[in-house]
Amino acid sequence: MKDGVTFVILGATGDLTKRKLIPAIYHLVKNGKIGKFAIVGAARSNIQIKKILSESEKFIKNLDKKAWKKVIYFSYYHRVDFYQQEDYRQLKKFVEEIEKKHKLSGNRLFYLATMPQHFEIMTFNLAKIGLVKTKGWARCAYEKPFGEDLKSAKKINKSILKIFNESQIYRIDHYLGKELVGNISLVRFTNRILEPLWKNKHIESVQIILDEDMGVGNRGPYYDKYGAIKDVVQNHMMQLLALTAMEAPKKLVGEYIRNEKAKLLSKVKIKDLILGQYEDYKKEKGVSKKSKTETFAALKLEINNQRWKGVPFFLKTGKNLDKKQTLIIIKFKKVDCLLAKTCEFDSNYIIIRIQPDEGISFEINQKIPEKNEVIPIKVDFCHSCLFGPNTPRGYENLLEDIMKGDQSIFVRKDEIENSWRIIDEIKKRKVYSYKKGSKGPEQLNIFNKKHNIIWKQ
Amino acid sequence: MKDGVTFVILGATGDLTKRKLIPAIYHLVKNGKIGKFAIVGAARSNIQIKKILSESEKFIKNLDKKAWKKVIYFSYYHRVDFYQQEDYRQLKKFVEEIEKKHKLSGNRLFYLATMPQHFEIMTFNLAKIGLVKTKGWARCAYEKPFGEDLKSAKKINKSILKIFNESQIYRIDHYLGKELVGNISLVRFTNRILEPLWKNKHIESVQIILDEDMGVGNRGPYYDKYGAIKDVVQNHMMQLLALTAMEAPKKLVGEYIRNEKAKLLSKVKIKDLILGQYEDYKKEKGVSKKSKTETFAALKLEINNQRWKGVPFFLKTGKNLDKKQTLIIIKFKKVDCLLAKTCEFDSNYIIIRIQPDEGISFEINQKIPEKNEVIPIKVDFCHSCLFGPNTPRGYENLLEDIMKGDQSIFVRKDEIENSWRIIDEIKKRKVYSYKKGSKGPEQLNIFNKKHNIIWKQ
Repeated sequence: MKDGVTFVILGATGDLTKRKLIPAIYHLVKNGKIGKFAIVGAARSNIQIKKILSESEKFIKNLDKKAWKKVIYFSYYHRVDFYQQEDYRQLKKFVEEIEKKHKLSGNRLFYLATMPQHFEIMTFNLAKIGLVKTKGWARCAYEKPFGEDLKSAKKINKSILKIFNESQIYRIDHYLGKELVGNISLVRFTNRILEPLWKNKHIESVQIILDEDMGVGNRGPYYDKYGAIKDVVQNHMMQLLALTAMEAPKKLVGEYIRNEKAKLLSKVKIKDLILGQYEDYKKEKGVSKKSKTETFAALKLEINNQRWKGVPFFLKTGKNLDKKQTLIIIKFKKVDCLLAKTCEFDSNYIIIRIQPDEGISFEINQKIPEKNEVIPIKVDFCHSCLFGPNTPRGYENLLEDIMKGDQSIFVRKDEIENSWRIIDEIKKRKVYSYKKGSKGPEQLNIFNKKHNIIWKQ
Repeated sequence: MKDGVTFVILGATGDLTKRKLIPAIYHLVKNGKIGKFAIVGAARSNIQIKKILSESEKFIKNLDKKAWKKVIYFSYYHRVDFYQQEDYRQLKKFVEEIEKKHKLSGNRLFYLATMPQHFEIMTFNLAKIGLVKTKGWARCAYEKPFGEDLKSAKKINKSILKIFNESQIYRIDHYLGKELVGNISLVRFTNRILEPLWKNKHIESVQIILDEDMGVGNRGPYYDKYGAIKDVVQNHMMQLLALTAMEAPKKLVGEYIRNEKAKLLSKVKIKDLILGQYEDYKKEKGVSKKSKTETFAALKLEINNQRWKGVPFFLKTGKNLDKKQTLIIIKFKKVDCLLAKTCEFDSNYIIIRIQPDEGISFEINQKIPEKNEVIPIKVDFCHSCLFGPNTPRGYENLLEDIMKGDQSIFVRKDEIENSWRIIDEIKKRKVYSYKKGSKGPEQLNIFNKKHNIIWKQ
């Protein structure tokens, strides 16, 4: 990325910019993964870039002063009311001046770090005043959530595709920036001992778990509108599902992988679900006192293709649960029992841990010494043990790939619309209360029993 | 085994009795796996049982005095020239007296710890004078090697089967007493993630390695007559091969496993081999100065059935090599390469380590952080890490199973004859010299190149 880039961050006063985007750019600078650059933050407030940076600094560990100084030196802020075209004109001038001053080539990375209802007008205005026309490249990143249902997502897609080609559009799902998510397809398709097993003939069920141990924090207003299903199931969990279940792509590169993910998502159907809301959620800041928003969901899905016919996929997520973990659990069918006496040994499992302690483990049966019996033994490919502690590099990966023009870890139009289609089919239903720090509502037991599911973790 | 047993060990002055049999009986006593018992050692020498026991004591670690005292108290010796019927008559009287004295039930475990040329006459004489007729059970263990070729093995079988039923005959292969050998079939057939992979569609080749880092020691006279092929390939390695490659038995119990092993061995053919002899072997005590006996062998085998058509099995064994190890290595075929750039990643492996550090490991490819490439990562089911250090219990297992009447880990008539048939087909050939502590003769490289084999360890 030695030819330089201007980051134009719209929504620069928000949490995302401070917590993720600025630190990610800092890391790219520190690791020499970026050449010339400038950051132009823009938002409605009348503040100074210094303030954004000083708040952002708190989210950087072991700050390298030299790299940080460089970030400070090349960072700017410009006030923009996103609904005023004139403001965009001023922004354009401002960006051009900075590019001139720092001899930047005109590559522009627009990052819309805002809520989706602003995506259309912002994209329209950026184009209208000619900011997206540049002698370098222009690429636009749209933070999640992308819409709030299938209809709105389609509408946004239609609008922005009048301005940009799909190849310029980077729909963000930061889970795709995680190493272990990237590992899923590599592990699946470079290991002979996995591929032949990866189907309904051998797999009994799949669990995808995304548990959090914290509440909504200061995201109350946003979260109360969306809820667990739209906040994480529609995007992160559907992507994990797609990567776990997709057919082999022609090659393990962006477009082919996105083809297979989109195809897979078009076959997914929700068969049952149960919703929950943690105690005192209604007292959270920015949450309606009568809120019926779910902070917990467990779902049973089916995938209607040859590979997965008959294999239930179970998804579970929630806030304020007993632990924080993201896992994919492949449960294999049992073998025909050949043991003389007891056959009560467990199934084999492959467990892909996305966080917190990344890794892959196998659970297979082993002989008990001196007995003709077996017990399940877990063995672990601990990622951090092998490669050292993984710095949280999600957004760094994302920004780096946008600069490279590599769309592999971004969500394509058809993927996003397919996953909204799945979610849109959910009808309104009862939301059960659950205790903070618990495993979810008590009614989950009924769901579990009905579907014969034992959550592995 | 609370109903008592008399161990009648013929060849009681030999190494096996001191090093293995007495310590094994001691361990059975110590671990409460045996009730009333007596040991009657017999051999040609005119010595006392004390001497045998005091030599045996050296081979027991952390001696439990109480248990050892018990072994001493119930141990006897009787001089027998194995070719004199009168001596057997005296032995019979002696055994009966001891059984009377200790109120033993008459269960008799005969252990022929001698060379195979004596098996027929000894069995004949034991029967002739009526020692094998008892009010309890009579079972007879034959130490390996069982014969020296197919013809002699058949002859012994024919003779001893006139005296005993096959159900009374326990042909010893002490490798079958090892935990990890017992684990092979349990692991293969209780894990869904292994069984579907276990065939030529997915497996490229199999290696069975039994390397030793010591010379022939004081076994010169025996070894020089037998050599590596008859000393370990015909028995231990053929058993490992059979357990690794056999079809699923109806149940994981003795007769069914032996059925499948025998069937498998009937399909094995040696395709090529190379022999070696370590430097200065001819100077070993008891070895002919002109010896052409092999102390090293590498073989290529094929198994002529549907499962293994096209999969070469490579066997390698030798004395005075660079390490001591017994391993089974399953090398999988590569997957179709889907990576964008390089596809030079390695195959998957499953490695079953029999000794010294028992365990099973998987080698699978994992993503390299920040790259779209993979590297092989080894992960280990370390047996001793899970179950604690494994005391060398081979003979303890064997004796215990004979007492139980469980023939699972003993070699049946058809197995032994099938494996001699395989070995008998080897024609005389050149024996290449190799340096002590090396990997075998240099000519092994030619063999390796010819058959495209890279020894994994």
